[in-house]
Amino acid sequence: MLTIELNEASADSLYIQLYSKIKTQIIQKELKPGEKLPSKRMLASHLGVSVKTVENAYSQLLLEGYIYSQAKSGFYISTLDDYRLSHTIKKEYHTKYHETSYKVDLKSNKNNVKDFPMSIWSKLLRETLSYDQERLLETVPFNGMLELRMAIANHLKAFKDMDISPDQVLIGAGTEYLYNRLIQLLGRDRVYGVEDPGSMRIKSVLDHNDVESYMIPVKNHGLSMEHLQEEGVDIIHISPAHQFPLGYVMPIQERLKLLNWANEKEGRYIIEDDYDSEYRYRGIPVKPLYSIDIRGKVIYLNTFSKIVAPGIRISYMVLPEPLMERYADNLSFYSCSVSGLEQLALARFIEEGYLERYIHRIKKTNSLQHSLFMEKLKHSSIARKLTFIEEDAGYHFLLRINTDWSDSEIKNFFLSHQILVSMLSEYTTQPLPEYEKTLVINDSNLSEEQMDYFIDAVLQLNHL
Amino acid sequence: MLTIELNEASADSLYIQLYSKIKTQIIQKELKPGEKLPSKRMLASHLGVSVKTVENAYSQLLLEGYIYSQAKSGFYISTLDDYRLSHTIKKEYHTKYHETSYKVDLKSNKNNVKDFPMSIWSKLLRETLSYDQERLLETVPFNGMLELRMAIANHLKAFKDMDISPDQVLIGAGTEYLYNRLIQLLGRDRVYGVEDPGSMRIKSVLDHNDVESYMIPVKNHGLSMEHLQEEGVDIIHISPAHQFPLGYVMPIQERLKLLNWANEKEGRYIIEDDYDSEYRYRGIPVKPLYSIDIRGKVIYLNTFSKIVAPGIRISYMVLPEPLMERYADNLSFYSCSVSGLEQLALARFIEEGYLERYIHRIKKTNSLQHSLFMEKLKHSSIARKLTFIEEDAGYHFLLRINTDWSDSEIKNFFLSHQILVSMLSEYTTQPLPEYEKTLVINDSNLSEEQMDYFIDAVLQLNHL
Repeated sequence: MLTIELNEASADSLYIQLYSKIKTQIIQKELKPGEKLPSKRMLASHLGVSVKTVENAYSQLLLEGYIYSQAKSGFYISTLDDYRLSHTIKKEYHTKYHETSYKVDLKSNKNNVKDFPMSIWSKLLRETLSYDQERLLETVPFNGMLELRMAIANHLKAFKDMDISPDQVLIGAGTEYLYNRLIQLLGRDRVYGVEDPGSMRIKSVLDHNDVESYMIPVKNHGLSMEHLQEEGVDIIHISPAHQFPLGYVMPIQERLKLLNWANEKEGRYIIEDDYDSEYRYRGIPVKPLYSIDIRGKVIYLNTFSKIVAPGIRISYMVLPEPLMERYADNLSFYSCSVSGLEQLALARFIEEGYLERYIHRIKKTNSLQHSLFMEKLKHSSIARKLTFIEEDAGYHFLLRINTDWSDSEIKNFFLSHQILVSMLSEYTTQPLPEYEKTLVINDSNLSEEQMDYFIDAVLQLNHL
Repeated sequence: MLTIELNEASADSLYIQLYSKIKTQIIQKELKPGEKLPSKRMLASHLGVSVKTVENAYSQLLLEGYIYSQAKSGFYISTLDDYRLSHTIKKEYHTKYHETSYKVDLKSNKNNVKDFPMSIWSKLLRETLSYDQERLLETVPFNGMLELRMAIANHLKAFKDMDISPDQVLIGAGTEYLYNRLIQLLGRDRVYGVEDPGSMRIKSVLDHNDVESYMIPVKNHGLSMEHLQEEGVDIIHISPAHQFPLGYVMPIQERLKLLNWANEKEGRYIIEDDYDSEYRYRGIPVKPLYSIDIRGKVIYLNTFSKIVAPGIRISYMVLPEPLMERYADNLSFYSCSVSGLEQLALARFIEEGYLERYIHRIKKTNSLQHSLFMEKLKHSSIARKLTFIEEDAGYHFLLRINTDWSDSEIKNFFLSHQILVSMLSEYTTQPLPEYEKTLVINDSNLSEEQMDYFIDAVLQLNHL
């Protein structure tokens, strides 16, 4: 008979204790394959428990395959393969993946979070939680909540001259997420192009999706049309309102060239990444390429993670209608990746004018802060060794340093001072002198102390 | 001189009016390419505005490429390609993509949302909004908030015998999202397998990612090892705790066979989809395959969208440590797709025991409801024409109808009564008689009226 001790005081019920003790004996081969188990009644009386308790334990063992039953005979121990059944050894917990923090971070595309109207955002979330409880538990439509798609359509109409239907909007959890979908929509057999210099992040997304893609050199603030043709590019990714990282606005001539290129052949598309067009320090935001496209060749991509705050992961794209229909036919089985709560709150944040006011405010704050930084740099003792490029472009500018040091030496020097910077050469495959010794600086979230600390480091670099 | 009317009362500033009127004249070729613009001072005095206003308008036109400047001479109209610059015609708005609603939905995997403790969930969200404001605006780590990863690790330890580190957990916006990442992690050149019958949704994700994949017939409540070998499968997707759609538990023998198969060759993995293991009506939840894997061959996948509520889009996977390190090295450039707020609230929902209590409650509710449905079906006048399969498995069961109708006739009949059902044959590529005339029924969200309405429809079907 089985030797099993059950504990009435245990948190586990008797049948679970019995089940797991028999299971352990089977695993440890104390009970041998083929061996017969005592009948339920016998075991129950032996252990002083109810027949029901034994019955439940046997059922679970049967369900999981540790025992089998033979009609009119009883229960037997199953034969198990020799794979060692054991738990992994408990390890001390330590987190490996923490982000390095820097004294000055001139790389991360973080907005000035202290200006975000968190109390309003919280209020909207709270109100949504109170008034829309039922809806929050429903499945979100594949393309996103209608309220948010309408708010986005109205916003684009008012601020970007884009005349679209809310049905052309697709909500997703981040630009890279939408990019993965786009590749599935447009086809993995197409050839993709990315500006050079340009977004290595997008190039990575393309590479990790195993699609053929090329870096296409920029030329005259547009793209080299020869390279586009030569590489056989079908789909080109650009940020015309504010080229990343060079910072210029793509002029109308180059925009029209690209539209004409797209129109020459079926299946050609332009992906317009409008990630920070709201933030130019001078002049009005430049209208997107989408607004002058009449043939459905432009896919418009934007994110609220950068406009609003990095903790809020909501991006969207506007697809030409035929593409949206193709998406609905083929890819709408994918669930929407953003939860309903934040979509509804964001819809109100836009509709009630908070977004506009916030953008206005942050432009002002960033612009003041940026002017201060420029002034400090231009009046520092190393000013004559510095060249400023696209310094009014918003979000980031280029700073060229007249030095003998190589790019990796410059970068490592700053890193040794706990300053994170990107070099322009990190965003290009072309080893051109004009792309060297140049920092890509994002100063949208910089305190005065950090400015001084950075300038002091540049001074030291100059003296070494 | 330019004929331009400016309106002091307009919401747009004078310079923006001036800029857009000149732009329109350039687009409409009223101003010809090469034509010289009046000097800033002349135009200002002609229009009765300040020089600054004209300067701002010219700057914006220059920035966007509509005009160009020549040193010591002035500003000229640019030459534009002939692409027609115009806005799309405004269309009446109507939403095309609305979901069909049914009187009875026996397909959608929706939980019984009325039991979700929305007030507690709201409270946790509100508290997170109050106490963690700063953190909510920070960028979420690529793998998710540490609090949530720790809560998940503790939960898995307590309820699933899984001894993991929070660093093995990766948070993402939905299972399909994580699947896309998995394919990028494991390689698009690998051969994937899905159970047959099995999840056509996962098959679709694989197909849309253009990876080679096969449906592998199930056999003896496990998989056909011959087919696995023949097709050269490297990575197999299974739901061993509750096979979808057949509903059985994969017995320990078959689990060990699969583990041994995975161990035979480097690069073989098992993706364990544990989507509804919490919900068995009878017995204790079956422990995952992951808990008996000692060689890092099992990738564990689960979602809170189904456990908690469909509006909350948070899934996670547990990767064996070497895979997680590979992920961190190659794919951590992808931002986390779930916003910080819901991650922090969910962490507390788990840590403070609400999840456990909720699962307990919903199991009870669903079980009562399910018993009622079974009773009604078994006591209806067509009971003898019905066969029930895995009716205690939780979430869904199979109902075979003894009828001459084909599967598509049955499905369409129910659709004509506004009842959405899936047929078992929709989940398989094998035209076997045992997979015919069988409904896959999810009754977790069914009112008594809906039960009666459905039974009435089955009666009608029988009489036709």
